[in-house]
Amino acid sequence: MNYTFSDGLRDLQPSAIREILKYASVPGVVALSAGNPAPEAFPVAEIAAISERLLRERPIDVLQYGATEGYQPLRDHLKTYLREKYAVGCDTDDVLITSGAQQVMELVTKTVCNPGDVVLCESPSFIGSLNSFRALGVKLVGVPMEADGMDVEALERALNEHKNVRFIYTIPNFQNPAGVTMSMEKRRRLYALAKAHNVLIVEDNPYGDLRFTGEDVPAIKTLDDDGVVVYAGSFSKVLSSGMRVGYALANKTLLAKMIVAKQGEDVHTTQWAQMVCHEFMTTCDFEAHLDRLRAVYKEKAQLMMDLLDEHLVPAGITYHRPEGGLFIWCQLPDGVDMADFCTKAVKEHKVAVVPGSAFNVEGEHLQTFRVNYSTPTNEAMREGVARLGAFAKEYIK
Amino acid sequence: MNYTFSDGLRDLQPSAIREILKYASVPGVVALSAGNPAPEAFPVAEIAAISERLLRERPIDVLQYGATEGYQPLRDHLKTYLREKYAVGCDTDDVLITSGAQQVMELVTKTVCNPGDVVLCESPSFIGSLNSFRALGVKLVGVPMEADGMDVEALERALNEHKNVRFIYTIPNFQNPAGVTMSMEKRRRLYALAKAHNVLIVEDNPYGDLRFTGEDVPAIKTLDDDGVVVYAGSFSKVLSSGMRVGYALANKTLLAKMIVAKQGEDVHTTQWAQMVCHEFMTTCDFEAHLDRLRAVYKEKAQLMMDLLDEHLVPAGITYHRPEGGLFIWCQLPDGVDMADFCTKAVKEHKVAVVPGSAFNVEGEHLQTFRVNYSTPTNEAMREGVARLGAFAKEYIK
Repeated sequence: MNYTFSDGLRDLQPSAIREILKYASVPGVVALSAGNPAPEAFPVAEIAAISERLLRERPIDVLQYGATEGYQPLRDHLKTYLREKYAVGCDTDDVLITSGAQQVMELVTKTVCNPGDVVLCESPSFIGSLNSFRALGVKLVGVPMEADGMDVEALERALNEHKNVRFIYTIPNFQNPAGVTMSMEKRRRLYALAKAHNVLIVEDNPYGDLRFTGEDVPAIKTLDDDGVVVYAGSFSKVLSSGMRVGYALANKTLLAKMIVAKQGEDVHTTQWAQMVCHEFMTTCDFEAHLDRLRAVYKEKAQLMMDLLDEHLVPAGITYHRPEGGLFIWCQLPDGVDMADFCTKAVKEHKVAVVPGSAFNVEGEHLQTFRVNYSTPTNEAMREGVARLGAFAKEYIK
Repeated sequence: MNYTFSDGLRDLQPSAIREILKYASVPGVVALSAGNPAPEAFPVAEIAAISERLLRERPIDVLQYGATEGYQPLRDHLKTYLREKYAVGCDTDDVLITSGAQQVMELVTKTVCNPGDVVLCESPSFIGSLNSFRALGVKLVGVPMEADGMDVEALERALNEHKNVRFIYTIPNFQNPAGVTMSMEKRRRLYALAKAHNVLIVEDNPYGDLRFTGEDVPAIKTLDDDGVVVYAGSFSKVLSSGMRVGYALANKTLLAKMIVAKQGEDVHTTQWAQMVCHEFMTTCDFEAHLDRLRAVYKEKAQLMMDLLDEHLVPAGITYHRPEGGLFIWCQLPDGVDMADFCTKAVKEHKVAVVPGSAFNVEGEHLQTFRVNYSTPTNEAMREGVARLGAFAKEYIK
């Protein structure tokens, strides 16, 4: 049998992050490459108690087919929660529960894009989303990132240049991988540009609740009374990543088509996971839990920054100080071979970071790599950054 | 905001089955329209015990991100199980765990089809799969069903006529909705034709373990040493539908691309659900559980056939006697308006069945409707079929 693959999948390779995770699992390698929540961030006892109760009191609801649009009590709760806490959502919006926020990206693309249509992405951006778009054969065009978010002048030029742009993809808070947060001024400008061009915005906000310093910036979706913004949220970083529960908040007309698309993908999201999320939000102290998470990540981020200051900055590596999220984006001096540096770091010095090239949109050159502070233990971070620093001092002449 | 939808989604409507389920949930309506497993089929106590143990002993494995290809112990176990029990799979094959078998259909389509490519489907066929294909913009061509499965002469003509056929979709056992099982002779012919035309077969087998009479027919996949067949299995009908766990067994080269596609859809399937399936298969008596399910469905199917003989056959309605699965396909006499009959049945007589038109491939006329015996209680079946029979005697002159 000779296989012929679709245009979208033919040249698509497994995510470089997940490939590097294979190296990262070699014994003795310190992995600063993952993006997993810290194991201590999972509220294990509460989830176990909720799960036991659900399987005792309502086993058939847990085990039987559910509705494609999601477990209704969770949909209702999220709608109220997002509106009251973040001023996100209006009367013409509704909530769809998805199998992780990743599925939101895929469903929007499938719903509004034909192959060859254009999606504008921050460059660099999250490879999982980029590959989700690529798999459906769309053309990605990168918009450079600045310290306060997307370069909106470049965005305007791209919107004028490409006539078949279907949406703009952004991670406005603690962007993965660049770590930056978009300013309110730029959010307003982005929204106005998208609306004027009749182009959707997909606002991916997996890390918004993980701010440990500075002031929250309102979501782009708070500006939206015209169905321009699809807001994507996730339980992966705040409750459990292995559960695979995310959601889209979007205009009902658009959402109705996304529901038809989801019906053909996985019928509905795992009932147990949806019900656990709902019970956790409504019967446990969700806000206290988020406070605890922020404290965990604040401490780990601070330790990582201290270690970078001690070991990497003296070798000429600079980095962006994050105000939240899980990652730090590090910049190598000009002239240093980034890919070779990252490869030798893992193969010869047993410390894994993610090369910036994993996050590029159109093959553009990047002189950067990403480190993570949520997954490794403090001890592993100390060992890993010390190894990386010793190697960097020797490698960067 | 004006929305423009993709070619695949523009005209796609929510599954008629799920729409009819809305009527079916009106108080007083007897629903013979669902396809849910019987509530008594779920091994609630075993699943609760397994879940409690997993969350006590290995909570981080349950709650943390997993691998896209699936929970490795479940992949390994299924590979051995399918090979030893059904002679399905060879050394060049591997297993991918999916979010229900529905995702297998979507992933194969995304991996090998561009919009406009052709998929050959049994006509009638399962609307969930058909809509999964349609959402990606492929063209569906129907192959008529006979009492022993697909009309293989018509299949050959379709393969010769359409040059861009990418796969043939079949449910060989207790087909949904037609209830028929493909003969071994036709399975051989189908395989030879597909191989000769370098076209994949997607063998969807959700009901294979639910045979309650007659002899098992070997899977098409047992003939395959050349990577022609993608075999799709599911835990939805044999363990829990709400868990959303299915799997693909296919050639490793093809599977590698499907894994990349899945990475962009939902990263991986819910860890809890995968681990529960593995523990159930390896620590409980899975074969005894399947025996129990077959006994449940045998009894319910027999009751349904007795009721149809008593109430519907005298009105001129005929039906196909199933040897397994969850459904019976009923044929109205010529000249009766099937759509009107089904609509009046639910609206005026409060008994819901699924009109055959929900399952057509290219808009062809069908004089049939589907009834289900797994979901309703025995009492509801008695009441529902009696109502339907009284109405049919009056409606069919």
